[in-house]
Amino acid sequence: MSERPPGHQVPTGSEGASTGTPAVPPREPSHAERCRTLVSSARRGALATIATEPAGYPYGSVASYGLDDQGNPLLFVSLMAEHTQNALRDPRASLLVADPVPEGADPLASGRVTLLGDLVPVADDDRPVARDRYLAANPAASYYIDFGDFTFYRLTVQSIRYVGGYGRMSWVDPAEYAAAESDPLVDAAAGIIEHMNADHAEAQVLFCRHFAQRPDTTAASMSAVDRYGFEMIAISDAGRAAVRLDFPDDCTTGDEVRRAMVAMVAEARAASA
Amino acid sequence: MSERPPGHQVPTGSEGASTGTPAVPPREPSHAERCRTLVSSARRGALATIATEPAGYPYGSVASYGLDDQGNPLLFVSLMAEHTQNALRDPRASLLVADPVPEGADPLASGRVTLLGDLVPVADDDRPVARDRYLAANPAASYYIDFGDFTFYRLTVQSIRYVGGYGRMSWVDPAEYAAAESDPLVDAAAGIIEHMNADHAEAQVLFCRHFAQRPDTTAASMSAVDRYGFEMIAISDAGRAAVRLDFPDDCTTGDEVRRAMVAMVAEARAASA
Repeated sequence: MSERPPGHQVPTGSEGASTGTPAVPPREPSHAERCRTLVSSARRGALATIATEPAGYPYGSVASYGLDDQGNPLLFVSLMAEHTQNALRDPRASLLVADPVPEGADPLASGRVTLLGDLVPVADDDRPVARDRYLAANPAASYYIDFGDFTFYRLTVQSIRYVGGYGRMSWVDPAEYAAAESDPLVDAAAGIIEHMNADHAEAQVLFCRHFAQRPDTTAASMSAVDRYGFEMIAISDAGRAAVRLDFPDDCTTGDEVRRAMVAMVAEARAASA
Repeated sequence: MSERPPGHQVPTGSEGASTGTPAVPPREPSHAERCRTLVSSARRGALATIATEPAGYPYGSVASYGLDDQGNPLLFVSLMAEHTQNALRDPRASLLVADPVPEGADPLASGRVTLLGDLVPVADDDRPVARDRYLAANPAASYYIDFGDFTFYRLTVQSIRYVGGYGRMSWVDPAEYAAAESDPLVDAAAGIIEHMNADHAEAQVLFCRHFAQRPDTTAASMSAVDRYGFEMIAISDAGRAAVRLDFPDDCTTGDEVRRAMVAMVAEARAASA
């Protein structure tokens, strides 16, 4: 993460102060990182296994999960459940995890990930770790985690399909996913967005005018934030546009985001003074 | 629905006034009816198809749907989408539909249905009806419903797995599902439950004491309501118990529920006076 160019993606002198395009596109999470963040921030998905009756049909069921260090889902399943019986006969499976869809929003604009792989019992040696990881994600399971009828399974991820919304989709390299970090701001993001939109609408207009070369911006609201930067909807007489800006340095806490925003406001004000 | 016995499930004289068991168990929706209600009240599920890469793996994706008269899901899919390409090669599929899980609640206690069958293109003659049904469930799709890249598919239901929570599960006869009605109170239920718990806690205690032979009830709250009756959690010094009571007659509107509740209060008060 050290190869990023210093400073904001502001126009260079040769491109003009307010009408040039950025020299370098803003950084953003890779699809592997987006997948890892999405899967880490949920605890429940749609498991698909291969049914025996009707034979060979894909069978969807609800499954809660935790994650191992490589991002493989760890499931805690009843031996009597259909999906467990299916996996015992044929381990081919997938887990679909979807971001929550806000009331009234288009569900196809939200992010979702399909992790495909074999669903196999967790080895005895790994059971304590699987138990800890599962309980960390599903604390209510502590009431029945030691019942004899349940056992731990791991979905060993071999193939990954990511759909981040319209036009943002790809097959993700499983090795990249295994090595990717969940975004450190994932838990703080909703609060940051709410605060910025409630109290700092003018600063966002300033950001769009100065850093995004959109001097005609009349209103702006934040739609996403991650360690690398943030996204806004910029509104002008010409319509709406999506804007993404880098932080001066990566931010891993809400407090670092606050300091970055203060520095960006100061820089934009100094440039326009 | 005319074979139901008249009146409430009160103890008969020979069983004693307060300790006998009901002569007839309370009526409740069949699993086919519960499935039809659950599937009708949602508009989005997890579609599982058979992937070509990795070959034969079940592939989960997000799908919005409407329903035809027999309760078969009608999907509106992009020809470029993975699930459409999968279905073109192998029509075996399922759609998992789950009730929303309240924040903090156990997801495995909520209801879900898996509809298994073949996912096939809707015939030209049926396209106008499919379009209407899909739009009725997904009005926002009107912006792109006539784009050329999308087409209608029907999941022809052949097999149904219902899981209503712990211990309430079965394979449901597809013919029963096709003939079943969605519960007429499904849209009103949340409001009825909220109103009864906010304003009529004492009436519920009376119901549990008089109609459910639980004279030691100290508090009660409604957890479900449908055309046939309603469910409460009854609390006493001995603990919590689930109680289900019939309405005097089937109720198809919130107003009929209100009148039924008033009549039940009057009957219980008269008996205990």
